[in-house]
Amino acid sequence: MSSFRFEILHQSKKSQARVGRIHTPHGVIDTPNFVAVGTNGTLKGLDNQMVDSIGLQLMFCNTYHLLLQPGVEVVRQAGGLHRFIGRQLPIITDSGGFQVFSLAYGSVADELKSRGTKKRDGHVLKIQEEGVLFRSYRDGQLILLTPETSIQAQKALGADIIIPFDELPPYHIDKEKLKSSLDRTHRWEKRSLDEHLQNPMEQAIYAVVHGGVDPELRRESCRFLSALPFDGYAIGGSLGKTKPEMVGMLRELMGQLPPEKPNHLLGIGDLESLEHCIPLGIDTFDSSYPTRAARHALLLTQQGNVKVEKRECQQQFSPIDPDCSCWTCRHFSVAYLHHLFKAQELTAYTLATIHNLHFMVERMRRYREAILADVI
Amino acid sequence: MSSFRFEILHQSKKSQARVGRIHTPHGVIDTPNFVAVGTNGTLKGLDNQMVDSIGLQLMFCNTYHLLLQPGVEVVRQAGGLHRFIGRQLPIITDSGGFQVFSLAYGSVADELKSRGTKKRDGHVLKIQEEGVLFRSYRDGQLILLTPETSIQAQKALGADIIIPFDELPPYHIDKEKLKSSLDRTHRWEKRSLDEHLQNPMEQAIYAVVHGGVDPELRRESCRFLSALPFDGYAIGGSLGKTKPEMVGMLRELMGQLPPEKPNHLLGIGDLESLEHCIPLGIDTFDSSYPTRAARHALLLTQQGNVKVEKRECQQQFSPIDPDCSCWTCRHFSVAYLHHLFKAQELTAYTLATIHNLHFMVERMRRYREAILADVI
Repeated sequence: MSSFRFEILHQSKKSQARVGRIHTPHGVIDTPNFVAVGTNGTLKGLDNQMVDSIGLQLMFCNTYHLLLQPGVEVVRQAGGLHRFIGRQLPIITDSGGFQVFSLAYGSVADELKSRGTKKRDGHVLKIQEEGVLFRSYRDGQLILLTPETSIQAQKALGADIIIPFDELPPYHIDKEKLKSSLDRTHRWEKRSLDEHLQNPMEQAIYAVVHGGVDPELRRESCRFLSALPFDGYAIGGSLGKTKPEMVGMLRELMGQLPPEKPNHLLGIGDLESLEHCIPLGIDTFDSSYPTRAARHALLLTQQGNVKVEKRECQQQFSPIDPDCSCWTCRHFSVAYLHHLFKAQELTAYTLATIHNLHFMVERMRRYREAILADVI
Repeated sequence: MSSFRFEILHQSKKSQARVGRIHTPHGVIDTPNFVAVGTNGTLKGLDNQMVDSIGLQLMFCNTYHLLLQPGVEVVRQAGGLHRFIGRQLPIITDSGGFQVFSLAYGSVADELKSRGTKKRDGHVLKIQEEGVLFRSYRDGQLILLTPETSIQAQKALGADIIIPFDELPPYHIDKEKLKSSLDRTHRWEKRSLDEHLQNPMEQAIYAVVHGGVDPELRRESCRFLSALPFDGYAIGGSLGKTKPEMVGMLRELMGQLPPEKPNHLLGIGDLESLEHCIPLGIDTFDSSYPTRAARHALLLTQQGNVKVEKRECQQQFSPIDPDCSCWTCRHFSVAYLHHLFKAQELTAYTLATIHNLHFMVERMRRYREAILADVI
């Protein structure tokens, strides 16, 4: 009996946006919400106690990376990922598929910059019905990732929400190949679900809708996956080259997913996308954008982004945002952050990341308020 | 009228060690104590609120680095270094001399590895009676560092304790040249003191005893500087190639300094040196050893050092030290730190630095207790 439960508190009168609550064994996730990415079990530059205190309710960890370092056995013996990394709040893990296929095909960004035609460094040895065989870039060990082994790994990690093993097809692919990739992904997701249901362990499992930029295949994916008892629905794969293409595709998709279940947009969470996608009814978004931006000296504020390395920040002795209550804004000035970045001090990355993460938590709280007021 | 004051609470019956209290405008420094190095106004990987909360009572910042970035004017306009960097507790700055002469001559370590014969990259353009002319490695700006400009810079920074401009002579130097370097250093220190006394601004100034490895010149330096109204005495320059040489030299020196004034050992603070030097009556020690060790995955514990990247740490799910009350030990395990270092996560450096700094604060507290009990 899972303690996972989704309740919708309010459906906006103005859009498809809704405010909800996802209940998990490690607490509540208010939706819509932003999910930060802690690939290796940490947000870069922050410790997990600080992340908890900022109020980030869901953190994304990557099974592929954790498989290779420290390895699933270490996490299992630690008593699961929460205990291992010192996080009290909910965690979601992916299947490892995304990274393995990124290695094989290159990322969409690579492809769009036409770096994707040459395959990467040959770590992926075989892709077949069973799964994917690849070689660890850390120690050369052979690893077979299948729907079953991915789910078993995610059982050992023990995240609150897990994701079935799927194929990330290349962006440039003809329809026939995309269709056979989708069919295999569906078979893999079904096998993942079956494996999960043998021992649900209080975990929820979200399907991943695929079909690339083909509306018909996307519809088929929604249909196939909605018929299976997944706890939620993630949207994966390429949604187009531009934001309008993405929004158009999502608008169509959202009507085809079970409205009573939570949904998640994989790998997209920049501010502009949030603005466009929240009215479509998307519940959670994961992205490394705000934390990566922080490490590149880009600070998010209600008044727009601040490039803190710019000369005009040199003598700004006020906080990034006087209304911000984050640790960084309460204690340090823009001028000091400017200095830390110029001096290439690690502390710069930490303080900027704290602020950007706090900004996202606050931004999502405001979105929820706006939806409750039917303003969005 | 300066609020600087030194009181000796206890003189050990067993050695020259003493327990004291240095009163400064930003609070008390219990002695003996360890002084961490925050070259650019931050300990690498920690923010200054965290550093304050660990209880580090004195932090060392480098005038040379701050002159170049962010520049003294920025700090002045911020209202001084404490406000600029968000530190509530005492700060000590050096004169800039050490770094400028390290650039010119190479460090002692360089010399001992015989890299020191070739001069560095020519940033230092001229050394003469007036001072040193050098070129900023950041923007190519010409900077004249003299006793007067160094003190003026340190006035703008506003540390609780400042240091006169001195020459760091090369380790390999004949006695005649060492003698003329010492004479000039004495003239520079006197000029620095005069400049300081025109406007003491609640700051204390510590002389720097020089004379290299020559006992006679060291005695002369103690004699000359003790006759001047400095608030304390730092020991600088090379004290020998080995620890026994250093300890022998310090033992002799300590008897020649005014016992009622605080003293400081510049740039030395590894655990072995502390063990040898505290019984000699040294009050404060600055060193980047514990923070640099942390970034190299070396954790300090009462039971000895732990190389946390070693394989045996992979599955150690207990804290670094179960008796340690630091943030890192309260929240995270050795296995997690091992993982973070293996994954090359910035968080590793932060968590390890917190622990090592807390260890030093605690170690010094124990030294003070041992002295109070006449055990040392």
